Amino acid sequence: MTAFPKDSVGLVVPQKVAFDTPIELQCGRTLPGFELLYESYGELNADASNAILICHALSGDHHAAGYHSADQSKPGWWETAIGPGKPFDTDRFFVVCPNNLGGCQGSTGPGSVDPESSRIYGPDFPVVTVEDWVETQARLADHLGIQRWAAVAGGSLGGMQAMQWAIQYPDRIRHAVVIAAAPRLSAQNIAFNEVARHAIRSDPGFRDGRYLEAGTAPQQGLALARMLGHITYLSDEAMRNKFGRDLRQDKINFGFDAEFQIESYLRHQGASFVDRFDANTYLLMTKALDYFNPAANHDNDLAKALAGAAASFLLLSFSSDWRFAPERSREIVAALLETDKQVTYAEIESDDGHDAFLMTNPNYLAALGGYLARVAAEAGE
Amino acid sequence: MTAFPKDSVGLVVPQKVAFDTPIELQCGRTLPGFELLYESYGELNADASNAILICHALSGDHHAAGYHSADQSKPGWWETAIGPGKPFDTDRFFVVCPNNLGGCQGSTGPGSVDPESSRIYGPDFPVVTVEDWVETQARLADHLGIQRWAAVAGGSLGGMQAMQWAIQYPDRIRHAVVIAAAPRLSAQNIAFNEVARHAIRSDPGFRDGRYLEAGTAPQQGLALARMLGHITYLSDEAMRNKFGRDLRQDKINFGFDAEFQIESYLRHQGASFVDRFDANTYLLMTKALDYFNPAANHDNDLAKALAGAAASFLLLSFSSDWRFAPERSREIVAALLETDKQVTYAEIESDDGHDAFLMTNPNYLAALGGYLARVAAEAGE
Repeated sequence: MTAFPKDSVGLVVPQKVAFDTPIELQCGRTLPGFELLYESYGELNADASNAILICHALSGDHHAAGYHSADQSKPGWWETAIGPGKPFDTDRFFVVCPNNLGGCQGSTGPGSVDPESSRIYGPDFPVVTVEDWVETQARLADHLGIQRWAAVAGGSLGGMQAMQWAIQYPDRIRHAVVIAAAPRLSAQNIAFNEVARHAIRSDPGFRDGRYLEAGTAPQQGLALARMLGHITYLSDEAMRNKFGRDLRQDKINFGFDAEFQIESYLRHQGASFVDRFDANTYLLMTKALDYFNPAANHDNDLAKALAGAAASFLLLSFSSDWRFAPERSREIVAALLETDKQVTYAEIESDDGHDAFLMTNPNYLAALGGYLARVAAEAGE
Repeated sequence: MTAFPKDSVGLVVPQKVAFDTPIELQCGRTLPGFELLYESYGELNADASNAILICHALSGDHHAAGYHSADQSKPGWWETAIGPGKPFDTDRFFVVCPNNLGGCQGSTGPGSVDPESSRIYGPDFPVVTVEDWVETQARLADHLGIQRWAAVAGGSLGGMQAMQWAIQYPDRIRHAVVIAAAPRLSAQNIAFNEVARHAIRSDPGFRDGRYLEAGTAPQQGLALARMLGHITYLSDEAMRNKFGRDLRQDKINFGFDAEFQIESYLRHQGASFVDRFDANTYLLMTKALDYFNPAANHDNDLAKALAGAAASFLLLSFSSDWRFAPERSREIVAALLETDKQVTYAEIESDDGHDAFLMTNPNYLAALGGYLARVAAEAGE
């Protein structure tokens, strides 16, 4: 058997849990029940005080760390941060990561069968929100016997879920770890999402969202959405460093094949994404992003929205992130300070743009690890 | 008859000129001849010293100022800057603006008939470069009896043409007015162009570029390209000021209709663009942008590329422009200073992003007008 790296959680088997109690969603619709696929790493301690919930971002899933098989080439998406001796130290924490409701990697979503119609949900799957996800994750916590998370953590849309946990279940979260996030999307953020959605929905293969039943797929549209996403995940600097104006061949060919390295990178990212991701889920995730705005019901005052939170907060941002720039994290920090919360904030120097939260960056991992070591000590670990 | 505004050039009739001498393009192919559609405003003086060439940007055309008819709702694209008493003062200058070769508004382009095959060029139209455009514009100057332009001016891709004029025909240009431009595209700039091209080329209506013959059109792809373009033309601030997170209706509808104002703005921009623009031309224009890199043949040293220029330069940039940020203009300024050229540079405070060069901004128009008044005085006007 292949040996996995020592600092990896190694072989992981996802688990599925079915919830049979109906769930009323923010959009007003009710699902009769739902399933969540999740992974866990490490051991829950006797008083269930060492559990950490990891929330995934737009294109993420439950496979945050380790390997599903010996021949899997890449580990889970947050392998840099989760494992023995890593910031989310699986020798000390019980780390849980579900695939979100509406996802496409095993949890109930638009690719599932609607028990009422016996058809694939497709476009009929309800629009889910960050609030809805927190609700489903609370049920997962109940199922696992976790009254209170030691921490809820995530980057980007995952960080928004951590923030929403602190608002929605103040007594069930001790620490919120909010990385590369924003208190709400800007018009420009929404604009990018809208172009991505338009690309998917205008693809003839989309068939009004019923592509699975039709045996088609909006492959070009989804690939375009992903290509566009990658532009916003990478900083201008990162692109310059990685690709510059380098050509794939020695000289310009005056045609439309990919000739700059950045072009073939984007085409590859787009093409490989369609094999692993569902277009309806992509649409739902972008809508959840657009709608997230905890201040909306509090006179657009984020401090008021956060006033009831009891958690301590760690906020991290990255200098070259232009999707959710450091200023956006500082808005959250300012609101937390205004309402006298415990906040630790670090702006990490990085050229990696928004993607930096997934990267190996010593300062970043040290800031995250230092904070989580305190969390572990509090949990008696 | 409707009166046009007093500071407008008023009614304009475009003119067409045919060049019958073959032109060898940078890609190595030769066109047997070509036509340019152009407009002119003002009068050429006796010694032909007061002529200004205006170069258009990606989606621009020859209709830079005035009106084609009394019931035209919007004037030409640079009406803010061209007209009696305006910076390009048509009481003093003879202002010329052609539609570029490869365009879709009347000059020879992919929608024209290839005289050799008697078919519409479509995808067979050669990839044209900024250098090629300068060559065609020099022929237009010959035709008009203009040995030396008092100035060549443009914004964005138009500014690149002005810069290329100073390099390619140093003795035929007295002033280069380079606005909101860059010495070459960054990897991020190319990435946006690539996504736009991918949207067009993957649209089933594109038919490998033969959509005119097929009677189809890559409408969704072209609309997507335009939507994406608009994100890069507007600054984050401009979008926030114009649209914020405003909803079209009072509340969120949990669906995929346009519900934020920014969404309906982008959809409108995309949909209206396909009525007036050709997809193959869009592809060609983005390629001309990607390829522009005068330093490439000079050890990647822009100062060396500019060393032979004899023109004086006006460079203008806009604080919130993130497509071609002020830093990009400063690269050009630094290279010009390094090789001892006359340079005037102003960075204009503006929230309007890249689009600012088309807007009414008193500081911008004053900087432009002040410089051009000197140019006029030199021309004896």
